[in-house]
Amino acid sequence: MTASVHPIRPRGRGSETTPSLNALLALAGPELASVNKVILDRMQSPVSLIPELAGHLIAGGGKRLRPMLTLACARLLDYAGTRHHKLAACVEFIHTATLLHDDVVDGSDLRRGRATANTVWGNPASVLVGDFLFSRSFELMVEDGSLRVLKILSHASAVIAEGEVAQLTAQRNVETTEDRYLEIISAKTAVLFSAACQIAAVVAERDASVEAALDAYGRNLGIAFQLVDDAIDYVSDAVTMGKDCGDDFRDGKVTLPVILAYARGGADERTFWRDAMQGRRSSDADLAHALELMRASRAIEDTLARARHYGTRAIDALARFPDSSARAALTETVEFAIARAY
Amino acid sequence: MTASVHPIRPRGRGSETTPSLNALLALAGPELASVNKVILDRMQSPVSLIPELAGHLIAGGGKRLRPMLTLACARLLDYAGTRHHKLAACVEFIHTATLLHDDVVDGSDLRRGRATANTVWGNPASVLVGDFLFSRSFELMVEDGSLRVLKILSHASAVIAEGEVAQLTAQRNVETTEDRYLEIISAKTAVLFSAACQIAAVVAERDASVEAALDAYGRNLGIAFQLVDDAIDYVSDAVTMGKDCGDDFRDGKVTLPVILAYARGGADERTFWRDAMQGRRSSDADLAHALELMRASRAIEDTLARARHYGTRAIDALARFPDSSARAALTETVEFAIARAY
Repeated sequence: MTASVHPIRPRGRGSETTPSLNALLALAGPELASVNKVILDRMQSPVSLIPELAGHLIAGGGKRLRPMLTLACARLLDYAGTRHHKLAACVEFIHTATLLHDDVVDGSDLRRGRATANTVWGNPASVLVGDFLFSRSFELMVEDGSLRVLKILSHASAVIAEGEVAQLTAQRNVETTEDRYLEIISAKTAVLFSAACQIAAVVAERDASVEAALDAYGRNLGIAFQLVDDAIDYVSDAVTMGKDCGDDFRDGKVTLPVILAYARGGADERTFWRDAMQGRRSSDADLAHALELMRASRAIEDTLARARHYGTRAIDALARFPDSSARAALTETVEFAIARAY
Repeated sequence: MTASVHPIRPRGRGSETTPSLNALLALAGPELASVNKVILDRMQSPVSLIPELAGHLIAGGGKRLRPMLTLACARLLDYAGTRHHKLAACVEFIHTATLLHDDVVDGSDLRRGRATANTVWGNPASVLVGDFLFSRSFELMVEDGSLRVLKILSHASAVIAEGEVAQLTAQRNVETTEDRYLEIISAKTAVLFSAACQIAAVVAERDASVEAALDAYGRNLGIAFQLVDDAIDYVSDAVTMGKDCGDDFRDGKVTLPVILAYARGGADERTFWRDAMQGRRSSDADLAHALELMRASRAIEDTLARARHYGTRAIDALARFPDSSARAALTETVEFAIARAY
């Protein structure tokens, strides 16, 4: 049953076998058009600033990864209906609302290589349009009418907000533990990946064990995804991420690469990391020194090793489902999430 | 049937018949303790900043007017259950989330005479804890399990956000019409008053005409309430409102007193109002001049006359219900809303 589950190995960039989202796009593309239609229809408002601002982010190069997960999981379960189109739009609305608020919270200027909405329209508009999208998402769920879906997504939303507050509390605190960090990324990122997958089991009317399997797939994929994002912040350039390398460093975000480098460092290095996270060492030279310490401590490699661990668990959670193009696409999505760092 | 409906007249401050919230408190007080227990229980989180920040606002002198409306409307309908305790808490959570975000949007320092949460904990924490309360509210609604309630409150939330964005768009635009202003306050304020009342009809399993009556009561009360608030900003001092007189003036909020004074003013006065709303006339002397123009144009009196109009409509919406202590309390609540200005 697990024979065809691929172990995840780092692959060279540009290799013929570099994993991509192509399989997921091929599988979910046609239905994604329906989801996009719901998104565009339902972000409208007579208050024109709402579709303008929301459209900037929604049309602005997002991968639609979460709604595609809903679509692919529904396909995995041979669900033949269309209820999940609206629900996939709900997931994207919640994600978009979160991004709008995140950019306000972080004071970010760039997202996906474009000016953030708060830069263009200001923080007040970003906060309020986020609130609108969030509310609209619940209106859409109510139209669908499944209390189970409402429970999953309202819980996910509360956990995301809790995770964001926890992250704010941990900010600049270099003593943040790996456990605490994992709790934070599980809450702020993985729970929506999980919910996106799990709701496919609800609309397909499958039992709790299927829900649990898709929850495990989404949760572990989400953790892997965030770990890789946090690693990339110390290796990428503006082209790769649509943001500058070292944003987390300058913002004093204590992510796993920092936690590992700090834990493995000597007294001087720990002092450096403490100062850096407190914002007292944030020059380009400081960032270069940070990267050097990470290389010496293998902090990035081991962050990515952790990501591969969660990625493998995600893929193993699919083992109960028979081979299919949906399972292959979901598997390659995990490999893609990991491979972004290489 | 309508014989006992009282017309609303302005009354002198300190008069023996000054309306108050006492009747509402007497009616709803015992059950309000249960609602407060739900609020306190459900704003908890292992992330301690959440109950700290939320508690600052929730414990900080709010009147609990909206949850008391839910309780009083349920009593009006002789509802004997307790489902509405949790739902009244939902309404208060949505209201609190809105206040947290409003204070960020407006950059407010004071609310109810105390430092705002954003002043104490910063804008990021206020945005995120607002999101948490909002999500938690939906979790509570899902626990109750009524799709009708979920529909009413998710719609209300979307309309509130839409109204707040519309208000942001109208800010500093002295050409805002009275119609537009009414749309904005109907959305940002009245819809939650309406929802708070309407959900009592849902839990009491009354028909659509009862829902419509309570919707009309809450909506008109909410409009009257906001009109009076907007008038008070030009007559009160910091003691009355817990904020300074003239906040709206300095923020360039085009409320009905301004709309009327502008419409009724000559060319010079219109230039003054335009400059003032654009932020070019915001000194104490400018505020004093604004108050003088409002006196000359009767802008405050007529704003309050509009409030009495909506207040009367709210009371008339109760005419279909037999005389009861609940109806008397709901009636006096309207009179209290109006009397705050005198």
